[in-house]
Amino acid sequence: MPISLDQAREQVARANRMIANEGVLDAFGHVTMRHPTDPGRYLMSRSRAPELVQPEDIQEFTLDSVIVKPIEPRLYGERVIHGEIYKARPEVMAVCHHHAPSILPFCISGMELKPVYHLGATLGASVPFWDSRDEFGDTTLIVAKPEEGASLARALGQNWIVLMRRHGATVAGLTLDELIFRTIYTARNAALQIQAHGLGHVSPLTAAETELASEYNLRPGPVARASEYWSVRLDKVEGTWRAAKPKAAAPKKKAAKAKKAKKKTRGGRR
Amino acid sequence: MPISLDQAREQVARANRMIANEGVLDAFGHVTMRHPTDPGRYLMSRSRAPELVQPEDIQEFTLDSVIVKPIEPRLYGERVIHGEIYKARPEVMAVCHHHAPSILPFCISGMELKPVYHLGATLGASVPFWDSRDEFGDTTLIVAKPEEGASLARALGQNWIVLMRRHGATVAGLTLDELIFRTIYTARNAALQIQAHGLGHVSPLTAAETELASEYNLRPGPVARASEYWSVRLDKVEGTWRAAKPKAAAPKKKAAKAKKAKKKTRGGRR
Amino acid sequence: MPISLDQAREQVARANRMIANEGVLDAFGHVTMRHPTDPGRYLMSRSRAPELVQPEDIQEFTLDSVIVKPIEPRLYGERVIHGEIYKARPEVMAVCHHHAPSILPFCISGMELKPVYHLGATLGASVPFWDSRDEFGDTTLIVAKPEEGASLARALGQNWIVLMRRHGATVAGLTLDELIFRTIYTARNAALQIQAHGLGHVSPLTAAETELASEYNLRPGPVARASEYWSVRLDKVEGTWRAAKPKAAAPKKKAAKAKKAKKKTRGGRR
Amino acid sequence: MPISLDQAREQVARANRMIANEGVLDAFGHVTMRHPTDPGRYLMSRSRAPELVQPEDIQEFTLDSVIVKPIEPRLYGERVIHGEIYKARPEVMAVCHHHAPSILPFCISGMELKPVYHLGATLGASVPFWDSRDEFGDTTLIVAKPEEGASLARALGQNWIVLMRRHGATVAGLTLDELIFRTIYTARNAALQIQAHGLGHVSPLTAAETELASEYNLRPGPVARASEYWSVRLDKVEGTWRAAKPKAAAPKKKAAKAKKAKKKTRGGRR
Repeated sequence: MPISLDQAREQVARANRMIANEGVLDAFGHVTMRHPTDPGRYLMSRSRAPELVQPEDIQEFTLDSVIVKPIEPRLYGERVIHGEIYKARPEVMAVCHHHAPSILPFCISGMELKPVYHLGATLGASVPFWDSRDEFGDTTLIVAKPEEGASLARALGQNWIVLMRRHGATVAGLTLDELIFRTIYTARNAALQIQAHGLGHVSPLTAAETELASEYNLRPGPVARASEYWSVRLDKVEGTWRAAKPKAAAPKKKAAKAKKAKKKTRGGRR
Repeated sequence: MPISLDQAREQVARANRMIANEGVLDAFGHVTMRHPTDPGRYLMSRSRAPELVQPEDIQEFTLDSVIVKPIEPRLYGERVIHGEIYKARPEVMAVCHHHAPSILPFCISGMELKPVYHLGATLGASVPFWDSRDEFGDTTLIVAKPEEGASLARALGQNWIVLMRRHGATVAGLTLDELIFRTIYTARNAALQIQAHGLGHVSPLTAAETELASEYNLRPGPVARASEYWSVRLDKVEGTWRAAKPKAAAPKKKAAKAKKAKKKTRGGRR
Repeated sequence: MPISLDQAREQVARANRMIANEGVLDAFGHVTMRHPTDPGRYLMSRSRAPELVQPEDIQEFTLDSVIVKPIEPRLYGERVIHGEIYKARPEVMAVCHHHAPSILPFCISGMELKPVYHLGATLGASVPFWDSRDEFGDTTLIVAKPEEGASLARALGQNWIVLMRRHGATVAGLTLDELIFRTIYTARNAALQIQAHGLGHVSPLTAAETELASEYNLRPGPVARASEYWSVRLDKVEGTWRAAKPKAAAPKKKAAKAKKAKKKTRGGRR
Repeated sequence: MPISLDQAREQVARANRMIANEGVLDAFGHVTMRHPTDPGRYLMSRSRAPELVQPEDIQEFTLDSVIVKPIEPRLYGERVIHGEIYKARPEVMAVCHHHAPSILPFCISGMELKPVYHLGATLGASVPFWDSRDEFGDTTLIVAKPEEGASLARALGQNWIVLMRRHGATVAGLTLDELIFRTIYTARNAALQIQAHGLGHVSPLTAAETELASEYNLRPGPVARASEYWSVRLDKVEGTWRAAKPKAAAPKKKAAKAKKAKKKTRGGRR
């Protein structure tokens, strides 16, 4: 059964903070998801750095990127990036637009991003480029107009990531978890490709390996392992992981270490 | 209405710590601003690492870089970098001198710094070099004499950043917020240009894109989003962000997570 | 006298977290050790990011990688990497499979990993490659089938590390401490080799230097020093290092600093 | 008047932790200083990662690197690196041996380390290499024998740093503060030189600039600013910086911020 709207707002706010915590988003960029029960709407924060997004920041937008209940605070200027992809790709449930430091060099150089290790396979068979100059000449580079978002969505096509020249990347996923996994591991893959290029040769996955490895990565097991990992790391940073660690326990643990040779394992206290 | 002197001291001290927290300043370098009501003065800390600068460290200087009320502690040796720019550029309200790790390679190699993504557009149409050897031969490389600062200001001209060969960079802004935005995002841009260069090709913004994107970046929306981001990050590091986080609340939050499937969103408690 | 099973579970869980804390493991990868008293079994966590592995997660497996006491939670898909090496190498007591960011560029480029400084000598005389394509054609790149694990173990041969093309590395050790030392310092060595390559020339250790330096590194002294270092760093991150630091002590320490010119050293309180 | 032995032990222990905190030392390497009143002795920790060294770990050694009061715990194997330099250079009061990640690529590639910005000038007019192979053929690469330390000291000559091929660097200073400054800023300089090399051209300081800038850097002002910076950063990491930050104060500060438009500056409370 689909999640509730409140759960969706909690999840997409958390996805913003999680991807920011992994260094892929900074002051700019955004993560959205399609409304859990109304495919004609999507959920996006009001304008705020992803690292700071909370459930109460999340607003509802039509696929034309018009806010359903207008608010006072500013909205993101690049809403249409998301709205136009939700229109063009009915199966896509989540989108991330970012300027990851490891991906931008590809956007700047025109070097093709390829899957170079198994965890990068989710970037898909190919990663197209989009250059605002082609259709629109000189612009602010901000994808703010519906026709610009529609152009970008056409460039994305049936792929999972599109690299925006001199700007950043936009990533799509069938679920929010898949979107998070793909966003983070594509950034890791990009960093490795840059390093391997520096060593003189990049030997990528074959098309078949890419398809097989991507399917494997997106099975429940690997996605759950990575999700728990990123989730706990976020909780640690936000202070909600074992926040109630009593000072008294620490010395006992230290003394316990000294006795470990004699005692059984502490059975789950850690 | 202009801010008070105390507010200005608080802001410029904080700008020092904020830019240091983002890795652009280390033990050396400085951020100053023109006096809020007297254009013939500027505000600068006594000699101290930017990361440590507090409002009470901020002193007033004439544009000849003479301290208005002499103090015992040392002053920065390179005050004239700021004073001479405030003289030459009446519209400039803030200046940063730094040795950012991503910018120095350009100062060392002579490679031209270009805007390579939209967020780097605020570096402006062109970034000139200044080499102390040209006018002054072999020096300590420290810009300490008025004539050296005046020479640097001439090299800056009407641009927003000047790269100082074998030294670092000096950045100017029409406001403190613009100066912070430009300083940090130029450093990010530089890091990306180095990586893209390694991939074999750097395709920069056109002059028109640069102008359009820069104007967009410096609108209130983007500046506010980045400012909140850097500000919160500084508060977190300094322990003044949600400092009063009760240990009791954490377990309830964890239990609350388990109940999330049933409850509405917590409405702003986070 | 051999350690107990509980001690072994504590140690291998900690090894996972320690290597993760040093940046060599992320959401994926694993560290295992052979059962302390039954060479026909090895100890491995259920499927979980290494950074999160606790003693209670550690399970027993036969060398055919069949779990001795089946559990509900998922298991790692690549168990056979470890099981097949424990079969092929009776002297090996610990194995790590990882995707370290500094090692992957070698797996992607085919560049040979060499010892470039004394602390990298434990990578051994030579580091072979293994490419799943050679025997198995296009696969998910996940080493899940016994024959794939056996193939990898054959490629490892009598060496200490094997680089898996487009995937990562697998490291072996005669003891868990040796395995940890080799895993971390090989990753450090790899990062330095990449940088040196960028400077134009890599001058590695001779075969004799490699053997002599490796033997020296693995003596009790160096291993103990590194182990204490990584162990304390992990405790600090986990909050079990001097966790009971009384707030009262801090101001006294600060006042104590002012008096240091007159007082003797505090004799071990720090 | 010279410092006491206890003060010296506190200072050199702290120097170890400070340089480790800045990423220049890891599990290995060491910082020592000559005895404050007996030039025939020097102070060095027993074998321990620099990050962990405390005053009570500091021992006295003769310049032949024999411990004055034997202890049970292990000693560093490479004591002679320090002892032989203290013999050869009577004016040197402090020595650091390290394997900094930014310096090793020079030791591996043979690329000459040059001052590339003003803060790197303290590396001096030239940085010689030393290769254990030249005199000793294949060794463990560990400088453990007196004749090896003496050979290294000869290579250092009257310079301030010697790069040890396939090993690391050894740095000398006229004072402990100078040694710390030189050690850290040479590592920063090396990182920048690597990046500039990647951009295609390295334009170093002239010999005269190097001498002038080095003399300027080592004046009390710059050294004090950097020392305070590194010292505070260490205190923050060790929890002795404003450790007693009352939770109550934080909310007042936050409310105070809101009132700042009306109040004067808080006068030194921060």
